[in-house]
Amino acid sequence: MNMELNHTHDASRRSWLDEANASDTDFPLQNLPFCVFRRGNSAEAWRGGVGIGDRIVDLAALLQAGCLRDRAAEAAAAAAGATLNALLELGPAAWQALRHELFALLLAGSAREQAVQAVRAALVPQAQAEYAVPVRIGDYTDFYTSLDHAVNCSRQLGLEVSANFDWLPIAYHGRVSSIGVSGQQVFRPLGQTRARPGAAPVHEPCRRLDYELELGAVIGTGNARGTPIPLANAQQHLFGLCLLNDWSARDIQAWEMLPLGPFLAKNFATTVSPWLVTLEALLPYRTGWSRAPQRPQPLDYLRSEDNARAGAFDILLEVSIQSARQRARGGQPHALTRTSFRHQYWTLGQMIAHHTMGGCNLQPGDLLGSGTISGPTAGEAGALIELTVSGTQPVEIGDGERRGFLEDGDTVVLRGWCERPGFARIGFGTCHGTVAAPPAA
Amino acid sequence: MNMELNHTHDASRRSWLDEANASDTDFPLQNLPFCVFRRGNSAEAWRGGVGIGDRIVDLAALLQAGCLRDRAAEAAAAAAGATLNALLELGPAAWQALRHELFALLLAGSAREQAVQAVRAALVPQAQAEYAVPVRIGDYTDFYTSLDHAVNCSRQLGLEVSANFDWLPIAYHGRVSSIGVSGQQVFRPLGQTRARPGAAPVHEPCRRLDYELELGAVIGTGNARGTPIPLANAQQHLFGLCLLNDWSARDIQAWEMLPLGPFLAKNFATTVSPWLVTLEALLPYRTGWSRAPQRPQPLDYLRSEDNARAGAFDILLEVSIQSARQRARGGQPHALTRTSFRHQYWTLGQMIAHHTMGGCNLQPGDLLGSGTISGPTAGEAGALIELTVSGTQPVEIGDGERRGFLEDGDTVVLRGWCERPGFARIGFGTCHGTVAAPPAA
Repeated sequence: MNMELNHTHDASRRSWLDEANASDTDFPLQNLPFCVFRRGNSAEAWRGGVGIGDRIVDLAALLQAGCLRDRAAEAAAAAAGATLNALLELGPAAWQALRHELFALLLAGSAREQAVQAVRAALVPQAQAEYAVPVRIGDYTDFYTSLDHAVNCSRQLGLEVSANFDWLPIAYHGRVSSIGVSGQQVFRPLGQTRARPGAAPVHEPCRRLDYELELGAVIGTGNARGTPIPLANAQQHLFGLCLLNDWSARDIQAWEMLPLGPFLAKNFATTVSPWLVTLEALLPYRTGWSRAPQRPQPLDYLRSEDNARAGAFDILLEVSIQSARQRARGGQPHALTRTSFRHQYWTLGQMIAHHTMGGCNLQPGDLLGSGTISGPTAGEAGALIELTVSGTQPVEIGDGERRGFLEDGDTVVLRGWCERPGFARIGFGTCHGTVAAPPAA
Repeated sequence: MNMELNHTHDASRRSWLDEANASDTDFPLQNLPFCVFRRGNSAEAWRGGVGIGDRIVDLAALLQAGCLRDRAAEAAAAAAGATLNALLELGPAAWQALRHELFALLLAGSAREQAVQAVRAALVPQAQAEYAVPVRIGDYTDFYTSLDHAVNCSRQLGLEVSANFDWLPIAYHGRVSSIGVSGQQVFRPLGQTRARPGAAPVHEPCRRLDYELELGAVIGTGNARGTPIPLANAQQHLFGLCLLNDWSARDIQAWEMLPLGPFLAKNFATTVSPWLVTLEALLPYRTGWSRAPQRPQPLDYLRSEDNARAGAFDILLEVSIQSARQRARGGQPHALTRTSFRHQYWTLGQMIAHHTMGGCNLQPGDLLGSGTISGPTAGEAGALIELTVSGTQPVEIGDGERRGFLEDGDTVVLRGWCERPGFARIGFGTCHGTVAAPPAA
């Protein structure tokens, strides 16, 4: 894929679908994110779709109408099944061909009238849809790449940030089976915790349940085992990004994580948003050229001569919360955090270069979590453990309610979007999940 | 599955296939382990098979011959594809039906002459076969459950074993994409290492490459997210066991693993043996009734009222090594370690109960690594870091060669088997892999 801006980034282009031209839509003509969907509560097959305004282009229906050409038709066929993996395997040129064909067909004034009619017939209202995790994830890796998050968490433990943070994007392998799509019910986990060092642990429901604001990056094309991906090429291996909530049980984590890392504290649930915003749509929001130099200077394999290819993006992010009581009253979620991914110390490109440097192979559909995204100021923390200083300074969530950690019935909502003068707003939709009581044992 | 001994455990039963009656065979009539295979260097489809003596029963061929009945035919059909996952999903009664049907057909003096002829025609020599990883692994979890291993490793760092070891089976999530079958070439990983605390790290090939002797446990039937598997039922969720080599880069691990655990130090390769020895075949080797009580007494969910269901087995294990020079001379691998899985502190049943306790869901085909298996005496350590005291006391490997850690060209061979008076020997075959130089960057 050509990593330069092209006509699909032109903010002056508008769609014949009015809802795609609204200034606050997440899904203008310039976005065209991918999902897997079906009509809610139906027996329809799960299938690939592309978001436009408040609709979904049903790729299987469009393909059947016969109005897609050549490479775009091949790509749509690969995306018409229950996961997008076959599309990912086709590679960047195919992804781009399909995106550009859809752009042309959705553009106001398109000369291909018959094809436009077919597109119109293939639109499904998002309000009628339900979504699936859009890819079959082979492996899920969760990083730890926000310096502000590392500082906030370490300070609470009276520790320095670990010495390796400055030298490598720290990561660990996470759990695939419990990854669910936005709307997931998150059972409060049972776990072992202990009241204080030296005490015997107890087995009880988690008391310090938290969220983590992250971005998910979906690998489009992988690498052979033993063949690292150089940083200069890393960005091209990404298909797209989504929102990700890395639910975390802080009390379980504190007891279990030495010496081998988090396990039950993280693997009970991870929630992703249904939409994969393509790398091509995000190109106007690269921040490589404006980032401060990393000090100490990274080792060669993590250093880019071309900052625009480093895989850094300015993505605005927000976390909101709504209690069960507030939901019953019909209130709006209460915003807790607003920050941007531009503050992240390590870039997505550096994460990929490091991940594969030792010979590990990535595969189409693999998911990378960015790690918690926290910005430099107090209101920019991406987890309650930071915002509330381990629960000791509860935050207001509206209607007189306060939270140190999450309570049963709480819904956590993540949102993300990009905006910049002269370019279209590129949104991610929402990623939400609701805490439920542990099932009866 | 009835977890009691039955006629398939009767050591006096013999097969009409002479090779299955040899006293030193890994695959007597009482074993019948599953694999996925094809004739080597052929374009044949990968398909399920069952080991007997020096042959493989080709399940697809046998099915086509029409001599399998009812539930066994259904199970063989599910096992005839490129992975065994569909067989696993059928559950314990189906696994048992197929195993018992094959036992009856392979038994000397079987009255079903026509069916026996079909079995004979469906035998493929193991010497002509190549193997695949027998299941599509959804998630791979690696445990740390040998107290002797924990003591050996901690002592080298001047540390105590972490306080949680006595209370829970410690584990972390591993990498699925780089799991390969016996015969795997293992590229020496590149990585970040540093000479001493405070020094800047360097980017170079691993200098302290190691193996870890483990068993792999394949989940047969899973659980719903939010619904833990009680210890009393845990063993029934296991389909079978294999050998597993958790290759480890000790220098990379030392620098990267704080605070979130091993990552590139482990994810460059993991090798499994091709044969899954079924839980039913292993029943005579349960050790639950003879194990010393765990102190401190585990929390309720890790405590079994019925030790025979606790998932502990006496499996003898051996690690051998062969240098490239020795291989060129046609020598035999040199044994470094002999031990038994009976020394493991936590049992497979406890690992499953703990893994799912917080609500994490297991799926058919998931792989659990037991963690390094080291016994209580010096010659029973399951990794070079223990045997050589971090490389400071190299071990003889024959022909005047010595090893602190692995060199390029070294082949590491794991073997496992069960033996007990009055019962048939149940073997695991071998799990071997050879170290290769890092690919040119």
